[in-house]
Amino acid sequence: MAHCHVLFYFCIMDISEFVKNGDQYFLPNLSIDLVIIGYSDAKLKCLLLKIGKKWLLPGGYVQRNESVEDAAQRILKSRAGLEDTFLKFLAVFGSEDRQFKSFLEQFAINEHIHLDQKSWLTDRFVSLTYYALVNYEEIFPTTGDFDEAFGWFDFKNLPEMWMDHNTIVNTARIQLITDIQHEYHAHNLLSESFTMPELHKLYETILGDRIDRSRFQKKMLSTGLYKRLPKLNKNTPGRKPYQYRAKK
Amino acid sequence: MAHCHVLFYFCIMDISEFVKNGDQYFLPNLSIDLVIIGYSDAKLKCLLLKIGKKWLLPGGYVQRNESVEDAAQRILKSRAGLEDTFLKFLAVFGSEDRQFKSFLEQFAINEHIHLDQKSWLTDRFVSLTYYALVNYEEIFPTTGDFDEAFGWFDFKNLPEMWMDHNTIVNTARIQLITDIQHEYHAHNLLSESFTMPELHKLYETILGDRIDRSRFQKKMLSTGLYKRLPKLNKNTPGRKPYQYRAKK
Repeated sequence: MAHCHVLFYFCIMDISEFVKNGDQYFLPNLSIDLVIIGYSDAKLKCLLLKIGKKWLLPGGYVQRNESVEDAAQRILKSRAGLEDTFLKFLAVFGSEDRQFKSFLEQFAINEHIHLDQKSWLTDRFVSLTYYALVNYEEIFPTTGDFDEAFGWFDFKNLPEMWMDHNTIVNTARIQLITDIQHEYHAHNLLSESFTMPELHKLYETILGDRIDRSRFQKKMLSTGLYKRLPKLNKNTPGRKPYQYRAKK
Repeated sequence: MAHCHVLFYFCIMDISEFVKNGDQYFLPNLSIDLVIIGYSDAKLKCLLLKIGKKWLLPGGYVQRNESVEDAAQRILKSRAGLEDTFLKFLAVFGSEDRQFKSFLEQFAINEHIHLDQKSWLTDRFVSLTYYALVNYEEIFPTTGDFDEAFGWFDFKNLPEMWMDHNTIVNTARIQLITDIQHEYHAHNLLSESFTMPELHKLYETILGDRIDRSRFQKKMLSTGLYKRLPKLNKNTPGRKPYQYRAKK
């Protein structure tokens, strides 16, 4: 009984109460959806949840007494279990026919609950979307008690998703490509310390293209954003690249 | 009786009906605010409306049967009278205490209308903000029938504004500086045809800094985004710079 948008409300209310009167606690017609991006095995991945036969992005609603930004962080924390995660606003998805009808019907069947056609949940929703860059190794997604599943999917091999969520993920992918040309946030996808070859490989993966390695390293180091760490004792033979860490 | 957010609804409903039951026609808790930016006399300017003793951004609400994007365009068109205006999403302003109370009280006094404390208008509003780049010369802002005023204000000399609107304008100013480093949309602030010295001066104004003129021109022309126009007959003496136009 712990699904997607609903997972986070059990501390507050019963699920029937949520379906019936949730708009007393949350802003109506407004949802938050998160594209949680990880990086593993030289591939970009996205964290998705399964409801019925399709998948969807982790998301939720904005409590009436919390800011939109806090809501996004709360939902991310509930899902990924991380504090201080890199989170960036992506886009508004606000088409006039954007509603959850087919998804909610599936959900109601799964949960054996009655879904009134006048429920606030069946109304139109404008989605505020964010993307998060997380260290795949440190993420422990939260699962629910019942038939919920989660999974990491390769950006290039996404499953069928509910509503416009495929479009949202694709928008995040394109935005990430744009953003890394002038922001330096991609290292959030790596461990806290990383080598320049690792960062280089990450950029190549995001851009889907080759990048000249020595020019890349020179450019990254010239930003002054990365601190070189002291050399570890080398007990193994061969040359080892320096480790770096992003400055605060 | 034609104020800011309210101006655009007279074709649909009476103002008392709007205050009382507007959320039957518009999404509740969600507003749109526009930072309409013009350029004149080597200064960046912002179009503001006056209500009572303070000013505010042109804005409105999203009709239940229109997309968020269409709502922003509709509001911009109503205000500035222009089609196909350059409009870009800016940011979400979603703090939990964001409501219009003091503004609405002033508005109700001006309009001699009763404002129920339970009106949807007195509730919290999340604002979706956009910035528009317009040709100052072609803009004819729409005024209302009563005590509304509008004015263009220098970005560096803004008046006191309602709510968080000063912050929104400042956010737009900073975003514009970031955006022109990697987007090529600033020419929307000029006439349809312009010279490279004019474009150069505009960039210097936005950045608040000097830019090497020949390097700037070289960079702009190398983008291939600007089409050089045929030379006009020169009836006046002296060398004239070429005119350019942005390609579609």
